Amino acid sequence: MKPLAVSMGDPAGIGLELAARVWADRQAAPPSFFVGDPDALARASARIGLPAPRLNVVGDASKLAGADGVLDVLHVPLAMQETPGEPDPVNADATIGAIERGVAAVQSGAASALVTLPIAKAVLHTADFGFPGHTEFIAHLTKDDAWPHARGPVMMLAGPSLKVALATIHTPLAKVPGELTRQRLIDTGRVVAEALARDFGIAAPRIAVCGLNPHAGEDGHIGREEIDIVNPAAAALRAQGLNVSNAKSADALFHQAARATYDAVIALYHDQGLIPIKTLHFWDAVNVTLGLPIIRTSPDHGTGFDIAGEGTARDDSFRAALAMAWAMAEHRARA
Amino acid sequence: MKPLAVSMGDPAGIGLELAARVWADRQAAPPSFFVGDPDALARASARIGLPAPRLNVVGDASKLAGADGVLDVLHVPLAMQETPGEPDPVNADATIGAIERGVAAVQSGAASALVTLPIAKAVLHTADFGFPGHTEFIAHLTKDDAWPHARGPVMMLAGPSLKVALATIHTPLAKVPGELTRQRLIDTGRVVAEALARDFGIAAPRIAVCGLNPHAGEDGHIGREEIDIVNPAAAALRAQGLNVSNAKSADALFHQAARATYDAVIALYHDQGLIPIKTLHFWDAVNVTLGLPIIRTSPDHGTGFDIAGEGTARDDSFRAALAMAWAMAEHRARA
Repeated sequence: MKPLAVSMGDPAGIGLELAARVWADRQAAPPSFFVGDPDALARASARIGLPAPRLNVVGDASKLAGADGVLDVLHVPLAMQETPGEPDPVNADATIGAIERGVAAVQSGAASALVTLPIAKAVLHTADFGFPGHTEFIAHLTKDDAWPHARGPVMMLAGPSLKVALATIHTPLAKVPGELTRQRLIDTGRVVAEALARDFGIAAPRIAVCGLNPHAGEDGHIGREEIDIVNPAAAALRAQGLNVSNAKSADALFHQAARATYDAVIALYHDQGLIPIKTLHFWDAVNVTLGLPIIRTSPDHGTGFDIAGEGTARDDSFRAALAMAWAMAEHRARA
Repeated sequence: MKPLAVSMGDPAGIGLELAARVWADRQAAPPSFFVGDPDALARASARIGLPAPRLNVVGDASKLAGADGVLDVLHVPLAMQETPGEPDPVNADATIGAIERGVAAVQSGAASALVTLPIAKAVLHTADFGFPGHTEFIAHLTKDDAWPHARGPVMMLAGPSLKVALATIHTPLAKVPGELTRQRLIDTGRVVAEALARDFGIAAPRIAVCGLNPHAGEDGHIGREEIDIVNPAAAALRAQGLNVSNAKSADALFHQAARATYDAVIALYHDQGLIPIKTLHFWDAVNVTLGLPIIRTSPDHGTGFDIAGEGTARDDSFRAALAMAWAMAEHRARA
């Protein structure tokens, strides 16, 4: 198995110090290399009181050494030295470049999977980054790669006791009903089912689908989307041999006993899926992109500009993102 | 303190056996009397293998005896013997009558508060019951009572670690944005703040308000309701001296550390509030009606027709509803 590629994220955020911390305490972490600026990583390490990491800086992913006790760095230089907590668009090209080179490293076979550290969309938009986030950008970078499976991207949040995939992501609530179509739900369901089998090793995954309305519409008394859209899509997926439920009351789907009845939930909109996962797994959930030719995970938090450089950022989610990417790559390698 | 009135709910559901079970094991429960059919209660008791309860049947709440080891029953006879799991509209009048007599008992001072056992709206609608549920019906029955405070009803779900009030309840999701107005949120906020002080003894309650959109709209990039409606309403409430937050990202509001920062949350729609409360407190949350002249709680579950008569229904939520009604009545008595 090749190592994981870790893209640096916004250098003014907590990403650098998370990378430094996990490298310094790497016994439990899978093999990885860093894609970004080696000096910035060294500075972040010093800021939080860690010994200087031994780095092997390469310009080409084919030159990764993987030597014991030495962190390979695929060089993407910053334009200007970072200031924790003060993001600067002048470094946007390096932030974007680290993602691009990380993706390319997986595409070339030099890395098993990509783990991305957080970016700040507002900073990148200044640099004409025309994507809502990592998920869509990485889908774009891999769109011409061969992929004989259902194609995403589908965003999933995964914690130790719950996996939730989203049918819509950053859609204003008023526009959610209009964006839900049978085809969209069928596509989402296929991506989720295939990914659970291929990337998570769940041979016959059970998928529960949330209703849109209170009590899943109560037989049409509180909205008709369940009858007109969600249930027909679920029936179409079942006709393809997949184990997918009709629309269920979302409020009764996330307590402990309910979670034992499925392998993943498809939530129809952002808060419907993110409220339960963050209620249960605020610190250790992982953001996973499903249905792409490359495996990509990330910690389920933002850049943390307000605490960057202090050394107080928790690394639970980043560690979980590394472990999950590694496990997914192992499953794909076996498939 | 006068006892609590417990209305029987649908006699084909689990309500009767919950009342029988809690009476049989009443050491930890506050004083109460039953409003419904005494023979039905005795049958439910027998069905789940409990000894026959000693009952004192009265036709008028002024005749309650409160004798040790004897359960007072305010008589509301069924039209036909119940069959567990098979609701029959012929008993709808008795189900409704038990609620009416329970409310009247509180209004007359014979009871401290009302705890309602579950009803099935579909059964009652057959009997021309023109209310979405208990909450609206009880608001109607008490609408002419003097109440020099902010008037609800506002529905709150309360568990040991979380209280959530709803700004909209059984509204189809597509209609939620249209129902949210500044005035509605201001009214909801006042009812919640006053009830936390008066009924829960929280002198200066801290209230967090959910945003409608992902990330609470991200400064208007993902919807404008936070800017146009939620935040102005919160500002108006703060101007009245209340501690009410601006719109917060709902997904980051319900983990343990976040819950320590407020006394209650106002959720803008059904699933936004019920997903977290039921994820955390599926078995022991209580449904509380705020802002009415009478105190009313109920277990946070339905009639359980599928398990009625089996004796397997959990009584956690009903017990919690009794305890909460009693505690609220104590707070009101002191105020």
